[in-house]
Amino acid sequence: DVKGATIYVTLEPCCHTGKQPPCTQAIIQSGISRVVTGSKDPNPLVNGKGIEELKKAGIQVRENVLKDKCDALNEIFFYYLQTKKPYVILKYACTADGKTALDSGKQEWISSQKSRENVHRTRANVMAVMVGVNTVLADNPKLTVRINDGKKHFQPLRIVADSHLRIPLDTDLVTSAKEIPVILCCVKELNEEEEKKKAILLDKGIQIIQTSQNEHGRINLEELMVILGQKGIDSILVESGGTLTANFLFPPCAQKIQCYLCPKIFGQSRYTPVSGLGAKNIGDTVKLSRPSVTFFEDDLLLEYKVLPAKTQASSGEL
Amino acid sequence: DVKGATIYVTLEPCCHTGKQPPCTQAIIQSGISRVVTGSKDPNPLVNGKGIEELKKAGIQVRENVLKDKCDALNEIFFYYLQTKKPYVILKYACTADGKTALDSGKQEWISSQKSRENVHRTRANVMAVMVGVNTVLADNPKLTVRINDGKKHFQPLRIVADSHLRIPLDTDLVTSAKEIPVILCCVKELNEEEEKKKAILLDKGIQIIQTSQNEHGRINLEELMVILGQKGIDSILVESGGTLTANFLFPPCAQKIQCYLCPKIFGQSRYTPVSGLGAKNIGDTVKLSRPSVTFFEDDLLLEYKVLPAKTQASSGEL
Repeated sequence: DVKGATIYVTLEPCCHTGKQPPCTQAIIQSGISRVVTGSKDPNPLVNGKGIEELKKAGIQVRENVLKDKCDALNEIFFYYLQTKKPYVILKYACTADGKTALDSGKQEWISSQKSRENVHRTRANVMAVMVGVNTVLADNPKLTVRINDGKKHFQPLRIVADSHLRIPLDTDLVTSAKEIPVILCCVKELNEEEEKKKAILLDKGIQIIQTSQNEHGRINLEELMVILGQKGIDSILVESGGTLTANFLFPPCAQKIQCYLCPKIFGQSRYTPVSGLGAKNIGDTVKLSRPSVTFFEDDLLLEYKVLPAKTQASSGEL
Repeated sequence: DVKGATIYVTLEPCCHTGKQPPCTQAIIQSGISRVVTGSKDPNPLVNGKGIEELKKAGIQVRENVLKDKCDALNEIFFYYLQTKKPYVILKYACTADGKTALDSGKQEWISSQKSRENVHRTRANVMAVMVGVNTVLADNPKLTVRINDGKKHFQPLRIVADSHLRIPLDTDLVTSAKEIPVILCCVKELNEEEEKKKAILLDKGIQIIQTSQNEHGRINLEELMVILGQKGIDSILVESGGTLTANFLFPPCAQKIQCYLCPKIFGQSRYTPVSGLGAKNIGDTVKLSRPSVTFFEDDLLLEYKVLPAKTQASSGEL
């Protein structure tokens, strides 16, 4: 018997019938006398109406308790519900002097074992992992979740930004596409050769999404996000090189940055986390939030939110 | 009366007569019965002999309590005492994608007000501040301590790495050299023009130190550190661009890195914290310690120790 009790909920109780009957009615009928909530449900069918209904039934309601922390629990869900586009996390690993690889281009691990394990846990918590075709050409990645805990893990979709279908047919992504889905994203304007390759790729079980070309002749990410959202993909972890990451930031088309900062200095190198496109003036800079900080061995994981663009200048004497 | 008391000291009591008579004798005569110490005094005149003397006098001694924290209090002093060279701190500010300036080269503040205030507090705690001549040419910095707390602060020496005496005579550093000392460091091999400029600079009250040329035709920093140490300079804060910072790291000739990491993305830019020289292979990488982390507004100050070079490779599947 919960008569007279207080119920604490992270999310506003719903007042509509979805897969389940409304929570609000169950609360009212139970005799609970007080409800404490964190987040408001942004679903337009709820969005304050649940709280309204409880109050009308004479229940005392306290709202917005630890709201930021409750919102953070449902970051992806809220974003997808409100925009119908996937929540995009850009992940990179770099040295303390901002380099992602040696200048020779030779691929070496720069992050710690624990950092890499955390990347696999992050993969298991998103619906899709995405790279650019250059990463496929350089590393032939599997992009699967590999966690040695004896459990079976969700395998996210694998997406490749490949404007002109340059992916080699013998890469692990292509040959395993029938086991774990692969989506290739290319432009609509393909030449004859590319159309032939498209047919071969489709035959190998790969899905292909085509967008218009952006001003740089590459796939239009904003358009792609709308299409992926329509397919029910609510979240993407982008684990790519500087070029694709820059395409997601200039202009901003991503919500979060995960930077694994490793205690090393590479010095001179052309490889940085964001390259190819950039800010021309200080006003074009992409602004980020204060980061959260987590250690993985001696690496730091810095998690930033990408803030809406806004001029922010300051000056002073050196 | 301290008879029978315990004394807690961060540093081993000395047993020699310097500016003061030995601490050990004062402790023994006072009747103190127990001494708890943190660091051992690395001064060869002490280095365990102080503790030895106390024990011989029948005093109970507990050593190495919070040793790491006590050692950190005297980092500069210990380093200078053992090597006779200044303790070098390399400081830079960069964006979350590792850029120190926009690709246009236009100078903009990227760090927060609180970060910049902390740089001034750091300047006040070292004996010298150092930049490369390119920073002088770009920013005409004063390199003074400016803290608005109404107190008078120590002004560190100002050192410029300027292999061929390119510093303009009308810069703030040159015109203020008679108030706050400036040391220019150049190579021994100067041409006729440079020799003339040297005479003018000396006349303006600037001190000049000349070293042999290194393999890149620049001043030899290792040699410079020995000379500066002989002049009694125990610590230097290097606040320079990528080139001079790289010269201090390849090969390592610095003890600490202070990285102010700012919540912004610049994207494409040639300006990174360490450039010009770098690691050719993963074995040449400069290894750093686990950093300490401090927030200044939304900036992170990451403080790394530069570790001795040592091959450290790892591999795995993407």
